[in-house]
Amino acid sequence: MNQDISIGIDIGGTKIAAGLVTMEGAVLYKQVVPTATDGKEHIIFQLQQLIQSLLGEAKKIGFRTVKGIGIGTAGQIDFKNGIVRSGTSNIKDWNDIPLKKEIQQAFALPVWIDNDVNVVALAESYLGAAKGYDNVVFLTLGTGIGGAVIQEGKLLHGEWGGAAELGHMSVDRNGPACNCGYKGCLEAYASGTGVANQMKQTLHKNPELYDGPIETITARDVFQWANEGKAFAKSLLDEAIDALAYGTVNIIHAFNPSLLVFGGGIIDQHSWIIPDIQNRVRNLGITSLVQSVSFAKAAFGDEAGVIGAGYQSFLYRENVQKEGASYEG
Amino acid sequence: MNQDISIGIDIGGTKIAAGLVTMEGAVLYKQVVPTATDGKEHIIFQLQQLIQSLLGEAKKIGFRTVKGIGIGTAGQIDFKNGIVRSGTSNIKDWNDIPLKKEIQQAFALPVWIDNDVNVVALAESYLGAAKGYDNVVFLTLGTGIGGAVIQEGKLLHGEWGGAAELGHMSVDRNGPACNCGYKGCLEAYASGTGVANQMKQTLHKNPELYDGPIETITARDVFQWANEGKAFAKSLLDEAIDALAYGTVNIIHAFNPSLLVFGGGIIDQHSWIIPDIQNRVRNLGITSLVQSVSFAKAAFGDEAGVIGAGYQSFLYRENVQKEGASYEG
Repeated sequence: MNQDISIGIDIGGTKIAAGLVTMEGAVLYKQVVPTATDGKEHIIFQLQQLIQSLLGEAKKIGFRTVKGIGIGTAGQIDFKNGIVRSGTSNIKDWNDIPLKKEIQQAFALPVWIDNDVNVVALAESYLGAAKGYDNVVFLTLGTGIGGAVIQEGKLLHGEWGGAAELGHMSVDRNGPACNCGYKGCLEAYASGTGVANQMKQTLHKNPELYDGPIETITARDVFQWANEGKAFAKSLLDEAIDALAYGTVNIIHAFNPSLLVFGGGIIDQHSWIIPDIQNRVRNLGITSLVQSVSFAKAAFGDEAGVIGAGYQSFLYRENVQKEGASYEG
Repeated sequence: MNQDISIGIDIGGTKIAAGLVTMEGAVLYKQVVPTATDGKEHIIFQLQQLIQSLLGEAKKIGFRTVKGIGIGTAGQIDFKNGIVRSGTSNIKDWNDIPLKKEIQQAFALPVWIDNDVNVVALAESYLGAAKGYDNVVFLTLGTGIGGAVIQEGKLLHGEWGGAAELGHMSVDRNGPACNCGYKGCLEAYASGTGVANQMKQTLHKNPELYDGPIETITARDVFQWANEGKAFAKSLLDEAIDALAYGTVNIIHAFNPSLLVFGGGIIDQHSWIIPDIQNRVRNLGITSLVQSVSFAKAAFGDEAGVIGAGYQSFLYRENVQKEGASYEG
């Protein structure tokens, strides 16, 4: 078979998904395993097993060559050197791992590692909601808030790959504390965790509002209460969306995108948030900038991680030889 | 003479400076005129006169060819098409001007137009404080606050050139109103205008603090009072610098630069602000990002505008033929 194929791997807090990805974004074969919880060596072993298995499967289907292995994972990723610098609290021990080197040595294939939101942005950019746009910003609203930026058709990585941490943009230096140590981050207001935390604080201060157990409240509860017309939940979500609107204006001022793409679990469930932000943004900020932006919902769901991760092998092939060569030395 | 030369023009609110710029950043000849206050046609006429005069001077010195004309001006500039979209309140009527086309038709030379802070960033990047750095963010603190971003060695322009409006990043959605219509912008806290406005408000609320005329207070007064130990002035500047620290962390999270360069009139006068911001930033935000940034003071003074504007002709020469050709049609 002449068609190019790549291995795409999406490393998440609960599961690792790995698939054979075509340049058109089809996932021909996929395996999913629960993420090991007993240390990085075990996760790396899982990755090796998955890759071995997928290489066998590719051969069975009839692909003579796999172009490369692309990985997406949460955390601050040193894209240039393929190192997981500081991971996420959701994956135990996921820090300071020269992942590219480890995998490249084991399989003698080009390997690319990037942040999970960056690879989703690749999928959306080449195959999804942002196809045809050169300057795009992505925000994913889920447990946390992630960001990715495409500038002149390329992912914006910054000095080592840590750019576009847009969930940790503060829109209120006197605002709520964020898990990252900073204050007033978008993530502290409008992520699943942020919405739940804000509600817990509200109810601790105003116990008359709710007589159930407070500590187990989730963002899902808050959205449901708002839907039922409960004023304290509606006003909390209004606050969260207002923070998102300010964050969005900051993002527009910083990057002058022509398109903003919103995705993630919260947007999948509540896509009305997108026009709500859009309406607020129109009345804030610098007119020439805020009025030249379109808003869209992510086209891909859960599979974007595997597709985008795998897509790296097609995008970055040109640089691979040089990169590979440096590992021989 | 074989050396390349370019015409660099810096259009400001009070004066237009134009010079013959070498690739090494020397300004061989310079003319300065007060900016016309009676409409855009008059400014364009001034530009034509200056260019005519500089072309004559270049010939006298012995340059057979001028490589191009580079212009830097305040406002939102459509870099791709060379249009001044929305200018600054400091230059009357400076909106919707197809400046590139006007100048190119008059002189049959390649013309580049960019935001004034962007061209200063070019000068600093190729010849000044940021030489050798590929990922840099520039902040100029003066009457307003301007920003520019270098990513992978290139100016970040966004979709049409409006990116890096970093003075209009909000760090408090409940903060002071900004001239741009937005709230809590860095410019509203820490620009010359912002510092003066904040002080006027403070004194209107607390008339016992000061018995002189309030409306003529400038940022210079505030810095002097702080220097004299006046608590209300010190606390106002502390607030302004804190806002700058939050803005800087947002910028680091967004762009992952390896260097931040601060310049402009306020920094020229009070360069202690740089280490003060640096100390605050260290204790905020995501460790791997905030700890991988250096801080520096701009190397160039007033002449950076002319040098950087002119430098565009050397940088962008490759694209010029294509651009020029499209104007023939």
